Amino acid sequence: MIDSLQCRRGRGAARLFDCVGIDGVGLIGGSIGLALKQRSLARRVIGFGRSEEKLRRAQALSAIDEFSLSFSAKTSELDLLVLCAPVDRIVERGVEAAERLRPDAVITDAGSTKGRIVHEMEERLRGRRCFVGSHPMAGSEKQGVEHASASLFEGKLCAVTPTSAVSLRTLQRVVAFWNALGMKTLTMTPDEHDWLVGRTSHLPHLAASALAMVAGEAGRRLAGNGLLDTTRIASGDPAIWAPIFEQNKTQVLAALDEFLGRLRQFRERLASEDQQGVERFLADGKANRDALGR
Amino acid sequence: MIDSLQCRRGRGAARLFDCVGIDGVGLIGGSIGLALKQRSLARRVIGFGRSEEKLRRAQALSAIDEFSLSFSAKTSELDLLVLCAPVDRIVERGVEAAERLRPDAVITDAGSTKGRIVHEMEERLRGRRCFVGSHPMAGSEKQGVEHASASLFEGKLCAVTPTSAVSLRTLQRVVAFWNALGMKTLTMTPDEHDWLVGRTSHLPHLAASALAMVAGEAGRRLAGNGLLDTTRIASGDPAIWAPIFEQNKTQVLAALDEFLGRLRQFRERLASEDQQGVERFLADGKANRDALGR
Repeated sequence: MIDSLQCRRGRGAARLFDCVGIDGVGLIGGSIGLALKQRSLARRVIGFGRSEEKLRRAQALSAIDEFSLSFSAKTSELDLLVLCAPVDRIVERGVEAAERLRPDAVITDAGSTKGRIVHEMEERLRGRRCFVGSHPMAGSEKQGVEHASASLFEGKLCAVTPTSAVSLRTLQRVVAFWNALGMKTLTMTPDEHDWLVGRTSHLPHLAASALAMVAGEAGRRLAGNGLLDTTRIASGDPAIWAPIFEQNKTQVLAALDEFLGRLRQFRERLASEDQQGVERFLADGKANRDALGR
Repeated sequence: MIDSLQCRRGRGAARLFDCVGIDGVGLIGGSIGLALKQRSLARRVIGFGRSEEKLRRAQALSAIDEFSLSFSAKTSELDLLVLCAPVDRIVERGVEAAERLRPDAVITDAGSTKGRIVHEMEERLRGRRCFVGSHPMAGSEKQGVEHASASLFEGKLCAVTPTSAVSLRTLQRVVAFWNALGMKTLTMTPDEHDWLVGRTSHLPHLAASALAMVAGEAGRRLAGNGLLDTTRIASGDPAIWAPIFEQNKTQVLAALDEFLGRLRQFRERLASEDQQGVERFLADGKANRDALGR
């Protein structure tokens, strides 16, 4: 147990935060902790969670300085809390923590969906303007603090999704936080975010899963780089991804229907031996892919 | 113009081939040339093709020693010819070259489809047992000899697809050739090959194209590693890929229908809020992807 006075006293001019709390110390939460320590952005990092074993591993890897299995006394010492639980637990954890937080503390999250989280959180924190949603686009198909890295966020994008319920100070603190980890931030509405990631993240994940299944035994015999690349993200944890799909159902279904339409268009062209049509399809795909770079 | 006697005289005991011809000196043909030179597997490498500019570039990069715009005198000096043209030109080029080749010369190809190429080639080379089909699984989304690399094939798989029309000597020479470039060879029938690559290469390519199109503008705003990985192969040259799809139409349509079925299954589960079903789908995909390694 740390002493509140001791925690406050250490605040240095160069530090962005004195005490940062991370709820959920897996790949993302653990990487935040490592980056905070490596960049000297916080004097003290406290991990929260429900599994003592995971928290002990995070501490052993120096991703956090100490931990707590409940939002108890330590919570009042935080000036920033980052919620890194799976998307379907973020609101409940945030609301629970908020009861113990100081009035000037700021909360953000790292969830891959934003609409439902932000709207529910604002409703339940009514009157407090301390929460702004975030989505650092820096995941990996790997799981757990063992794969965490201080450089995970460097040069990557972070979507920050304020609404009119967010104070300017909260927004500025959260943007400064992600920038300090090396990220470029993009501000957008929660709904705009969910439309974007439905097409750029959730649909590709689903396609990767289905491709891995169709490849099946054939893939185990003859897998080239193409198959390995297209299916890599299918290795993500289903327990984390199922709630993401559920929370972004509307946008995922819309993107999936567009995808199905494209595939049927290709099918028609190939079946009717419209080779020019097939080539135009591939040229469209190439133009869109080339525009992404890398 | 090289002298035939001079070409034959240089054969060293350690060399697998004296004169190797490469028809089509793009990424694959150019990489074969570089690997042959770097590993001292051939004394002389001759490039063939229709574009003098491309052949000159390949020569400048030392991927070939010299070149010819037609299968003329130089052709009779080859003991191996590797056909690296797009799949819809391989047979015509192979047949044309065969008229000039010595009786003991061996022909193989590097085409991404095998059924039609092998059957047509054997029909048109009737009586000669000098051709065996190959598919080195070592492409890239990049094109041109500028991206060629002597190490492109190292540790990768090469499918070799003999039929009863191939002599054992031809098969052994071709397997030894790919092994000498650092590849592991897998022997299978042409039809088996096409079934495998329909699922492991052609369908993923098509899915990558369609994903890039659905991402579109959203991808240009917010692309994470997942989107970049899943769509990378969509950057392949449409002029090379359209004939591949056309040649493997039957297997691509079968794989595509299976893929569409999987996607519709996911759609039903998500639309009906069957979260356990969604999670099982993702777990199936993960198990199949994890089995591929890397």
